[in-house]
Amino acid sequence: MSGDLRDASSAGVTGPSSRSDEIARSWDANAGAWTRAVRERSIESRRIATDAAIVETVVARAPRRVLDVGCGEGWLCRALGAEGIDTVGVDGSAALVEAARDAGGEFHHVSYDELTTSPASVGLSRFDAVTCNFSLLADDVVPLLRVLATMLQEDGAVIIQTVHPWIARGEAGYVDGWRTETFATCAEHFAEPMPWYFRTLASWVETLLRAGLTIERIVEPLNPTTGEPLSLIIVAARAGETDRSTS
Amino acid sequence: MSGDLRDASSAGVTGPSSRSDEIARSWDANAGAWTRAVRERSIESRRIATDAAIVETVVARAPRRVLDVGCGEGWLCRALGAEGIDTVGVDGSAALVEAARDAGGEFHHVSYDELTTSPASVGLSRFDAVTCNFSLLADDVVPLLRVLATMLQEDGAVIIQTVHPWIARGEAGYVDGWRTETFATCAEHFAEPMPWYFRTLASWVETLLRAGLTIERIVEPLNPTTGEPLSLIIVAARAGETDRSTS
Repeated sequence: MSGDLRDASSAGVTGPSSRSDEIARSWDANAGAWTRAVRERSIESRRIATDAAIVETVVARAPRRVLDVGCGEGWLCRALGAEGIDTVGVDGSAALVEAARDAGGEFHHVSYDELTTSPASVGLSRFDAVTCNFSLLADDVVPLLRVLATMLQEDGAVIIQTVHPWIARGEAGYVDGWRTETFATCAEHFAEPMPWYFRTLASWVETLLRAGLTIERIVEPLNPTTGEPLSLIIVAARAGETDRSTS
Repeated sequence: MSGDLRDASSAGVTGPSSRSDEIARSWDANAGAWTRAVRERSIESRRIATDAAIVETVVARAPRRVLDVGCGEGWLCRALGAEGIDTVGVDGSAALVEAARDAGGEFHHVSYDELTTSPASVGLSRFDAVTCNFSLLADDVVPLLRVLATMLQEDGAVIIQTVHPWIARGEAGYVDGWRTETFATCAEHFAEPMPWYFRTLASWVETLLRAGLTIERIVEPLNPTTGEPLSLIIVAARAGETDRSTS
């Protein structure tokens, strides 16, 4: 859900226990500024590459039904809807879900904790794809991803777009850890900074495997001017039913 | 097999057809300089990080029998042998295989083409791991990897160490293509430059999937001084027998 985390600096914070609450609070506090930033397309990386990249990656799989987790004000749901894909959005911020509903579409106000413990809260049907577009921001996303995997059709995929680890590592270096997004590159005034958890490529791969997912495809959208990757998109499917180690 | 490709520059060459021959010729021409560079540990990235990283990654899987493809003068075979692992080396350079045999161990002089068409040329037993330590240098490595996958035990893995795509992209930018290794950072005099094919992360993942392999683990050895990743290690297992798309 975040816009451009590349300028985040190390926060030097410890103790992950309250970070999820802090993330949730920041989205409520920043809901208005965020909605304007997305709808006015003022976040450059999204405008020049990453918005189109996530849409193309989803559309390439020709899904009929998609769940967008951390949908924010709903732009991805609307973009996929315009491609004829039945898309449901879910977000933990009541203010963002309200903004999303105002623009039309099916949205549920459900926190990640609620979604993890009660996936049926967004309906009982299975999805051809579940998208997490810059919306996995906590340190432990394995329980959520494990549940999202169960919400997939047999040939479905979880499609994650996140900051490119190599570009986004920041001053804290290429190691997992908490960072702080200040939204300094956004024109709008954001009321609160947001903590987010940086993960190396190796850590992303381990996280997915622990959630029972295997990587099917990687997409690295480039900045058309500089040639630098602006994000990392991971398409991950449920690990095969066959356990190779015992077969 | 290459040492430190990070300083390679774009060669501006086209036409991949003769590149494999050129790669093979360069290893024969550079065999003496290469053997000295490895045995005198004069390649910094290997000394400070990547040698230990590939050994640790292999040992962590507790394999009994390993095939090292592109073994060069044989150091990895000897290092794994010292850990009690039965390791066989194969290389396309007669001069390097001779140097490897001089230091002791089981080595076969077999080109990648021969290995691809006649995998039994290195024996009929299956391996718990197949290593490719900086030794996948051609543009199309899918046929070779597909054959290596068939040489694995059920729970075996192909373990590839390569230059880190985000660091090694060089002036040609973050796009697949041929580069030239000049060995300029090595103290020894190398007779010939070597063409090698640069692959983005996305391209590596696609290559593995096309070869019937799925990624089980990624390791990114860091330079202990700068914190930059010095290489990318990919541990890949045979894709499950279950085809999810039809099950």
